[in-house]
Amino acid sequence: MNTQIEYVRPDEIEKRSFEIIGRELEQRGIVLDAVQEPVTKRVIHTTADFDYADTLVYSENAVEKARNLIKNGAHIVTDTNMAKAGINKKRLAGYGGEVHCFMADEDVAAEAKSRGVTRATVSMERAAALHRPVIFAIGNAPTALISLHEMMQEGVFTPAFIIGVPVGFVNVEAAKELIIQSDVPHIVNRGRKGGSNVAAAICNALVYGIHY
Amino acid sequence: MNTQIEYVRPDEIEKRSFEIIGRELEQRGIVLDAVQEPVTKRVIHTTADFDYADTLVYSENAVEKARNLIKNGAHIVTDTNMAKAGINKKRLAGYGGEVHCFMADEDVAAEAKSRGVTRATVSMERAAALHRPVIFAIGNAPTALISLHEMMQEGVFTPAFIIGVPVGFVNVEAAKELIIQSDVPHIVNRGRKGGSNVAAAICNALVYGIHY
Repeated sequence: MNTQIEYVRPDEIEKRSFEIIGRELEQRGIVLDAVQEPVTKRVIHTTADFDYADTLVYSENAVEKARNLIKNGAHIVTDTNMAKAGINKKRLAGYGGEVHCFMADEDVAAEAKSRGVTRATVSMERAAALHRPVIFAIGNAPTALISLHEMMQEGVFTPAFIIGVPVGFVNVEAAKELIIQSDVPHIVNRGRKGGSNVAAAICNALVYGIHY
Repeated sequence: MNTQIEYVRPDEIEKRSFEIIGRELEQRGIVLDAVQEPVTKRVIHTTADFDYADTLVYSENAVEKARNLIKNGAHIVTDTNMAKAGINKKRLAGYGGEVHCFMADEDVAAEAKSRGVTRATVSMERAAALHRPVIFAIGNAPTALISLHEMMQEGVFTPAFIIGVPVGFVNVEAAKELIIQSDVPHIVNRGRKGGSNVAAAICNALVYGIHY
């Protein structure tokens, strides 16, 4: 453990952190795909957990596809205000994108109650009503992934991309497998781990990595 | 891996999750202190990471002290909007508490710039100006912990309690050791791991665990 405070210029800390992550991945004999690398590294940067190097699952050309969507103004829909708070909304707005968290909206809860449906159902309807490509970033609720999968099966609504990283112990692993086996482009963290912070980190890595 | 979706009533999921966590801690031969247990378990619930059972450090009677503060209307100051978003503000308000994130305030940034000081300095001044007991919950910036420690050393400002769980690779471990060695009551996660989600989980466990 390093218990000595060293002076590092604030704008250098992130660079230094990514160097340390790169070195430790090398020591562990892990070689990441070059396109996926900035995304996986940012998740490790956010969690200090190298397990993610083994468990993140990318569908074919997932990073390129997500970046193209963002570049063309796709909106991001999260399942928690925490994930929404963690996403760099200014940078996203530069491409015309916005972040929504319908699940936490008071009026979504009210509408769900009065119609006798789940908040997830109403949230998906709101997402569909945006009438533009949508990236779903689910960091908390496996039920959101399960609802999403049902709507895709029924042909009601299919998002352009799914970031599926809920965390937990009940139905989390199974919900993620549903998305991994689907045709929708995705980044999913296999297993129990994930979180709103991981969802936000993946979104930010995708936004930051766009170069014209 | 459990890839079968099972129907669990939404209000049962958390209870079931905590049962699984309890069982797995037992299988690992880990016996938690009874008072700290709900806090440690909630962090594991938020991260699906059992490492926290070994690395969370509680100062003497930390949980009792933090709960007493909250019960008496202490405010919570976070270093990120993400941590703020994750804290159950309604429940906290029931005890007269509020959550602030001065670090992310636009006018704090402006004031820091015009005075040539750091945002952390201005944030601590704002916290001191609340004129009430303050719990600091730091999930992101080790520099916030270092500034806090400096102010404590200089006698400028001492919070009533510190939740010190920044995550990362540069100065994070050392910053946490400063707090562990201080006299301020604290809950700190030793090592690199932590995060805004962990900070929020600890705050919520403290708030939820208050019984009259």
